[in-house]
Amino acid sequence: MSVTKNISSKSKPEEANNSVGEFELIAEYFAPLATDPGAFGLKDDAASLSPPEGCDLVLTKDALVAGVHFLEDDPADLVARKALRVNISDLAAKGAEPLGYLMSIALPNGWTREWLALFAQGLNQDQSIYGMSLLGGDTVRTPGPLTISVTAIGSVPKGKMVRRGTGQIGDKLYVSGTIGDAALGLQVRQTTEVASAWNLSEIQSQELCQRYKIPEPRHVLAPVLIEFASAAMDISDGLIGDLTKMLQRANIGARVELADIPLSSPASHIIRHDPEALRYVLSGGDDYEVLAAIPPDKSKAYEKAANAVGVSVTCVGGLIEGEQTVSLLDQHGQYVHLTHTSYAHF
Amino acid sequence: MSVTKNISSKSKPEEANNSVGEFELIAEYFAPLATDPGAFGLKDDAASLSPPEGCDLVLTKDALVAGVHFLEDDPADLVARKALRVNISDLAAKGAEPLGYLMSIALPNGWTREWLALFAQGLNQDQSIYGMSLLGGDTVRTPGPLTISVTAIGSVPKGKMVRRGTGQIGDKLYVSGTIGDAALGLQVRQTTEVASAWNLSEIQSQELCQRYKIPEPRHVLAPVLIEFASAAMDISDGLIGDLTKMLQRANIGARVELADIPLSSPASHIIRHDPEALRYVLSGGDDYEVLAAIPPDKSKAYEKAANAVGVSVTCVGGLIEGEQTVSLLDQHGQYVHLTHTSYAHF
Repeated sequence: MSVTKNISSKSKPEEANNSVGEFELIAEYFAPLATDPGAFGLKDDAASLSPPEGCDLVLTKDALVAGVHFLEDDPADLVARKALRVNISDLAAKGAEPLGYLMSIALPNGWTREWLALFAQGLNQDQSIYGMSLLGGDTVRTPGPLTISVTAIGSVPKGKMVRRGTGQIGDKLYVSGTIGDAALGLQVRQTTEVASAWNLSEIQSQELCQRYKIPEPRHVLAPVLIEFASAAMDISDGLIGDLTKMLQRANIGARVELADIPLSSPASHIIRHDPEALRYVLSGGDDYEVLAAIPPDKSKAYEKAANAVGVSVTCVGGLIEGEQTVSLLDQHGQYVHLTHTSYAHF
Repeated sequence: MSVTKNISSKSKPEEANNSVGEFELIAEYFAPLATDPGAFGLKDDAASLSPPEGCDLVLTKDALVAGVHFLEDDPADLVARKALRVNISDLAAKGAEPLGYLMSIALPNGWTREWLALFAQGLNQDQSIYGMSLLGGDTVRTPGPLTISVTAIGSVPKGKMVRRGTGQIGDKLYVSGTIGDAALGLQVRQTTEVASAWNLSEIQSQELCQRYKIPEPRHVLAPVLIEFASAAMDISDGLIGDLTKMLQRANIGARVELADIPLSSPASHIIRHDPEALRYVLSGGDDYEVLAAIPPDKSKAYEKAANAVGVSVTCVGGLIEGEQTVSLLDQHGQYVHLTHTSYAHF
């Protein structure tokens, strides 16, 4: 773990007297989170790590920028937990148990010790929940917005990482939990009129907003996916867009029954009032649910095993012959045309 | 590897038509860099990795922000290489051979394909030099400056990672290469009058500036450090500040002979003109040389082994009894008081 000076500090050493020392910052906020012996209490420049016996490591990296991936006034502990959880969600869909993470954080002007203390508290909470240790990282200053980058590391039995593009024609497609809540929650948070236009109660609004603020990664599904899934990925960029990524091989497509997509009670309520809002459900992102391709002869066992670890899973369609596209069917079996499958862009 | 949409794109899907698709961006610039089979050609959400037989993994993470850790107009390929090399430098000082890396890059408004193509070209060059593969990452947008975060992964023989705080009283302190060039180069780059005040030739200026723009990590020293060093770290935040971090145990201090610190020809020239500039040499940072504690009976063998891999190493002092402080001695054996040992601050 290192704290890097900035250019102006190098050229203006006289400013340094008013500053927080790097030892102090690391010792106070981050070292207590480095519980793995291989993290050396953050008193080194690197961590040492080996996978558990008979396992591979699984590595993933997601970055979050204030005002882009979370709102600037989101509480620091929830920002920290979201930064961890979006990565844990990736690990879960690959069948991996979380082990640890490295984090770089670029602090904007005006950061406070209170903010950082709450941020570290959020990390601590989730480390306990998911059994992870901070392994290292870097703390820098930025003239721009708060930016957090996490590299999360998990383990899977050797050779067993659940892949994204290995689904087979005939597999059933399952999603965990409910879809679209976070994207609808973001709409509610961003536009004050939306909640009343959708005739949402205060409780319904809060439920949706909470799903945006802090994802619930399906880490308990990891061993179930290893046992039953021929392919899996987490849904972070929208169901249809992410499903399209699963269709990487030639001659494979997917069919999705709109009526089968599991919706929460507030989401159902919104779609009844405003059928157009379905586009947020299908393509809005931030679900952090698991999309899995399950061979048909294993589907009942998959449902049972998922339920046994407390996760509901719902079949929404299947993998079919096709040209890497998703066919959406309405309740009458008619094809629905979707103009925007994913809003990811540059 | 994933490309994450931003909030506004989610709420304004009509903008998406003008955008660069994420598949295209990853396929064009990043997938060719994912040479390790465990990176799955970046067609998955995570990488799979195991250390080579009999080895531990070593993990380190450093972030760079435009205008903070490099200048905004630095060429894209050099920015990419610097981002990789500051991490490789950490691995080298730990005795680790580079294996791969994950990278998150937050692209500012106004990024261009030309910039990204040159950036990827820089990564490709250094991957070849250091034998690394891109393993994954995340590409996001930021309203702030370009921000790059790299997690680098290397391997060491099991249990052999060279630690930072394990030096012994009596060990000799060695540095590789020359110290201070990058910090002096940054001064030259930032203040146009500096080069003439220091009476530098064009070639001397360029030599110093180049050391700032692109570090030369001492990866070839890695096995030599494993064999001979009782402790090591790379010098990134200034010799004296970093040496102080090495003195983590009670009752250990260090002595450094100012006259023994190895200087390049341009740096010697500057110090003769402006003895005050020594502060940049001692505390300026960005050296990316290796500081190593070597038991006295191994010092000759260390010098020989380092020279054999093409790296000059110089003894600058030793570890002594003391209270975690560095005693600086001038050429007359007099103690020198340094007001600013390190300019790192928040």
